[in-house]
Amino acid sequence: MTRALTEDTVVVGLLDQPHHDGSPLYVSTQAPALGQTVQIRLRVPAPEDASDRVTTVHVRTTPDGESRYVDAVVVHEDEHETWWQAEVVVHNPVTGYRFLLSGGPAGYQWLNGTGLHDRDVPDAADFRLVATDAPPPEWALDAVVYQVFPDRFARSAGADARPTPEWAVPARWEEPVTRDRRIIGDQLYGGDLDGIREHLDHLERLGVDVLYLTPFFPGRSNHRYDADTFQHVDPLLGGDDALARLTLEAHRRGLRVLGDFTTNHTGARHEWFETAVAQPDSPERGFYLWDDDGGYVSWLGVPSLPKLNYDSDELWRRVLVDPDGVVRRWLAQPYALDGWRVDVANMTGRHGAQDHNHAVAREMRRAVDEAAPGSLLVGEHVHDFSTDIRGDGWHGAMNYAGFTRPVWTWLRDKGFAPKFLGSPLRVPRLGGEAVRETVEDFMAQSPWTVRAHSFTLLGSHDTTRVRTLVGEDARQVVAAAGLLLTMPGIPMITYGDEVGMEGDSGEDGRRPMPWDESCWDTDIFEAYQALVRLRVDHVALRRGGLRWVHADGDSLTFLREHPDQTALVLVSRGAHAPIRLSTRHLPGVEAAVAAYGTNLGREGGTITLDADGPGVSVWVWPGAPETPW
Amino acid sequence: MTRALTEDTVVVGLLDQPHHDGSPLYVSTQAPALGQTVQIRLRVPAPEDASDRVTTVHVRTTPDGESRYVDAVVVHEDEHETWWQAEVVVHNPVTGYRFLLSGGPAGYQWLNGTGLHDRDVPDAADFRLVATDAPPPEWALDAVVYQVFPDRFARSAGADARPTPEWAVPARWEEPVTRDRRIIGDQLYGGDLDGIREHLDHLERLGVDVLYLTPFFPGRSNHRYDADTFQHVDPLLGGDDALARLTLEAHRRGLRVLGDFTTNHTGARHEWFETAVAQPDSPERGFYLWDDDGGYVSWLGVPSLPKLNYDSDELWRRVLVDPDGVVRRWLAQPYALDGWRVDVANMTGRHGAQDHNHAVAREMRRAVDEAAPGSLLVGEHVHDFSTDIRGDGWHGAMNYAGFTRPVWTWLRDKGFAPKFLGSPLRVPRLGGEAVRETVEDFMAQSPWTVRAHSFTLLGSHDTTRVRTLVGEDARQVVAAAGLLLTMPGIPMITYGDEVGMEGDSGEDGRRPMPWDESCWDTDIFEAYQALVRLRVDHVALRRGGLRWVHADGDSLTFLREHPDQTALVLVSRGAHAPIRLSTRHLPGVEAAVAAYGTNLGREGGTITLDADGPGVSVWVWPGAPETPW
Repeated sequence: MTRALTEDTVVVGLLDQPHHDGSPLYVSTQAPALGQTVQIRLRVPAPEDASDRVTTVHVRTTPDGESRYVDAVVVHEDEHETWWQAEVVVHNPVTGYRFLLSGGPAGYQWLNGTGLHDRDVPDAADFRLVATDAPPPEWALDAVVYQVFPDRFARSAGADARPTPEWAVPARWEEPVTRDRRIIGDQLYGGDLDGIREHLDHLERLGVDVLYLTPFFPGRSNHRYDADTFQHVDPLLGGDDALARLTLEAHRRGLRVLGDFTTNHTGARHEWFETAVAQPDSPERGFYLWDDDGGYVSWLGVPSLPKLNYDSDELWRRVLVDPDGVVRRWLAQPYALDGWRVDVANMTGRHGAQDHNHAVAREMRRAVDEAAPGSLLVGEHVHDFSTDIRGDGWHGAMNYAGFTRPVWTWLRDKGFAPKFLGSPLRVPRLGGEAVRETVEDFMAQSPWTVRAHSFTLLGSHDTTRVRTLVGEDARQVVAAAGLLLTMPGIPMITYGDEVGMEGDSGEDGRRPMPWDESCWDTDIFEAYQALVRLRVDHVALRRGGLRWVHADGDSLTFLREHPDQTALVLVSRGAHAPIRLSTRHLPGVEAAVAAYGTNLGREGGTITLDADGPGVSVWVWPGAPETPW
Repeated sequence: MTRALTEDTVVVGLLDQPHHDGSPLYVSTQAPALGQTVQIRLRVPAPEDASDRVTTVHVRTTPDGESRYVDAVVVHEDEHETWWQAEVVVHNPVTGYRFLLSGGPAGYQWLNGTGLHDRDVPDAADFRLVATDAPPPEWALDAVVYQVFPDRFARSAGADARPTPEWAVPARWEEPVTRDRRIIGDQLYGGDLDGIREHLDHLERLGVDVLYLTPFFPGRSNHRYDADTFQHVDPLLGGDDALARLTLEAHRRGLRVLGDFTTNHTGARHEWFETAVAQPDSPERGFYLWDDDGGYVSWLGVPSLPKLNYDSDELWRRVLVDPDGVVRRWLAQPYALDGWRVDVANMTGRHGAQDHNHAVAREMRRAVDEAAPGSLLVGEHVHDFSTDIRGDGWHGAMNYAGFTRPVWTWLRDKGFAPKFLGSPLRVPRLGGEAVRETVEDFMAQSPWTVRAHSFTLLGSHDTTRVRTLVGEDARQVVAAAGLLLTMPGIPMITYGDEVGMEGDSGEDGRRPMPWDESCWDTDIFEAYQALVRLRVDHVALRRGGLRWVHADGDSLTFLREHPDQTALVLVSRGAHAPIRLSTRHLPGVEAAVAAYGTNLGREGGTITLDADGPGVSVWVWPGAPETPW
């Protein structure tokens, strides 16, 4: 429900509700071993009416599939709140849990990832602990990712010497992206890896620390998702040596580099596919899915993208297992990638009755953990990824469903309703409450560690650009970037977003990066710089939990809570009435200082959050006074 | 929300909402083949305001994990409603789908199993089609199951001649069940299979057509969930021949018989376990889970119930694969069971990092489909079973979570709050709206076919008896039985419930069946008889979909809709104000006749549903005028 605020409204919001999320303030370890006992905490605000006190708390788990209840005990109590704690054994690799409360206003309540329920609810939104042999990389929790589409970022001098391949339509850097769909994949601007290397200072200036490259294998298109081989870097990008030079230089500067691998398919000119066609007795024949008349299965029926068949043990070896297989070799020296983004992760290994998806994800996880411990694996997934990505395979997803789409529904221009990756309807425009519910609903399906290791993004090379999405007012871009850089997850910025690059579709948005700074929107660039810095400087924004305070039409207010720091964030899409909160529900807020945006209004026991237009404000104060772990 | 009705209230209820469920009125086939195209229908009531018309409908599926949208077209339109239809390919064994509506009051809405949503929602409540090599048995859709605990149902003359085993404490039939927990499993009344055979006329008189026997293998307890062997029927029950006699006689009378198999564990005196202990090199050693000091894993730590280890290929063969293995041999002549209830299905094959649960379920499905096509497999599961039972393994579950518990929260006596299977809190007492939401929420997680093949039950040998649950007023038992026999699923009646047997816990409820009819509550018995007959006589109650009309504190109103018949059901837990519905939303209701309970009030364009106390009323009329499939 969207409620209109008036000048006098004092919002209780959601702060009178018990809270737990899987973040470090509420769980004693983010990377438990199988069989380990973990401490779990629940925070229960003191009720207005003492007769509404919660009297017992139990934690329900389901070891080996059977319900079990553990008593929680009070470990801290003050005038603001009571903290309950329970010991939970991580008995299975993914161990679900939820809280059962007695007392309280309803007498009987469950708390799971979608909040409080006065009746029984299914398990899909249970909280979850994940135990794996190798935990997900901790550095990723502090990362900000910068996505580069190699053909469009920067051209080195070496590019001029390279002949244009027969499939390509060359374009000058200043030329607009074509709208002719027949040649949209052929238009080649000639960006290359040395060009990227020469512009790493831009990444440093922006403050990001991870470079994610869309595919660098040779293909027959500017996007290169149609690989001809996984053995070599495209000579048009400078070849293997250019990749080695790029990662070496990036690492020297403290930046990490991720590749992009199409586990789901190859190009139809891939050496494996050509062998499979020419030699029906070859092992490569088994790498693909054939019908009786020699036809083959391809990605969404696109003939240039034949789908890989993970029934083949030999494919399994060449992709996942062999030291020189695709996944491992590019993580090794001299390329030393820091992980992979997995293209079409959602479809990988799936065809009709065949479903190797989880097995491929787990084997790929094993491959990176063995070949290059600490590497990151993030799967592409456009809708609900919760059943595919549970924390034991790919570390996280591209979180379109639980971040991009809800943010778009809030910030899209009233006059511009983009379509979103295959949906037949335009993205609706919704109020803040619906955005909060959507984010919560999707994220409740996943373990905290998956959420924390998923990319949040305002768009990508596959979508409308955020600058175009929000319409006229550039301050809306700042609001969007504010959400991106203050919410949980690994923020991913698509090259050019930070200078206000436009584009009304994925292809249209793949514009050449303008290196003439007079073409930049410097307000946007400075806001991105400052917001990246803000995140990097504040552990609460990087590693804190997420506790919603209030959401209505034009505003979203939430807390990021970490044992060492708390941040209160207000993001506004327009001017709105002040949000007045009682300090009773915000212990520690008296020490709050503005880290970004406006100052906090204070008056007696009330604080006031103001916005006179689109934007973001962040206030921080020291974290919980005691944390026993 | 629970709303109070007054005399003048006209309820729109939920009838102005678009509706789909997976039942035959809305889906062209319940048992599609993989790759088959299925017709899916959505019914959209005409809105009050024409500007709220739904303008387009799309069906979203996720073949191989990627969203795909299919256009729906209007196939029927009249003044009451519009029917949209789309063609959906069953591309994967479990194919999820949901509807995307444009127009309507919100402009953008999803419809999934939990209803309409004005924002994006995760996939857990998507509708689902299931394609399997062998569909679930159709007879089960029309069945009413009668659960018998063999020691307590009836004693044949042969029982007197059998010596009491050393572990047992003999009891006379008239003796109360002990409250001494130390001997509660040892108290042996001596009921046997010939005793059951001699009382099959009672099942016929009640009208049920499936006899489900809790275990008949020999054990060291009256419940026999601690089998000594799976090779023979307990001699105390009459041995193998008595089982053959019982199934032969049951089949002669048109009754089916289900067994009960502990896939999860054996007894500690099981021949396999004794071999495993005595001969560490035996194959049987691998049938169990051992720790380094010779200790073993057992069901919930109970030493007498060692847990089976499905890592063992030999166990796999002896249980699931061999023609003479446990699952298959008892389905073959001369025993010819018609299926199995699977004990502790939820834990089967699971231990820490090991999870063979789905694999065991699928292999057991294959075993019964091969050995005795048409057999039924129903797994025990006490909480949310949706991720375990998807339709490709066990056909259904014991639906405690989505039926028993919500019904208990509605009908339990104000003064008696039982615990439920392990929960530390008493079952709360809730209004009808919470009950409706709970049922809908749990059932939305499962394919319609799983729901239809799951046991609905008011209790079992493991729970408080319904007669005790509801307190003084026996009419509450009739209300409970009314829900049991008018809701989707396979109703399961625990022996004795039909005569008002009491019991405040599972053990206490395992009372010997009183064959002296002067001890029966004949009002209850007659109501059970009539309600079973009502179900058997009305295809809408057996096979119809479920469309909620209204729910509030003391009443639940819903439609069961089938192509050939519609039933309107009112269940009340007490007197309540009349529920007045506009006939505009109920096409066909003018032809309604009372099949059970009170007459329908009619006045102009309104019908009135009355209740002056606990009970059930059912009205029926012919089904949809056209069904194209």
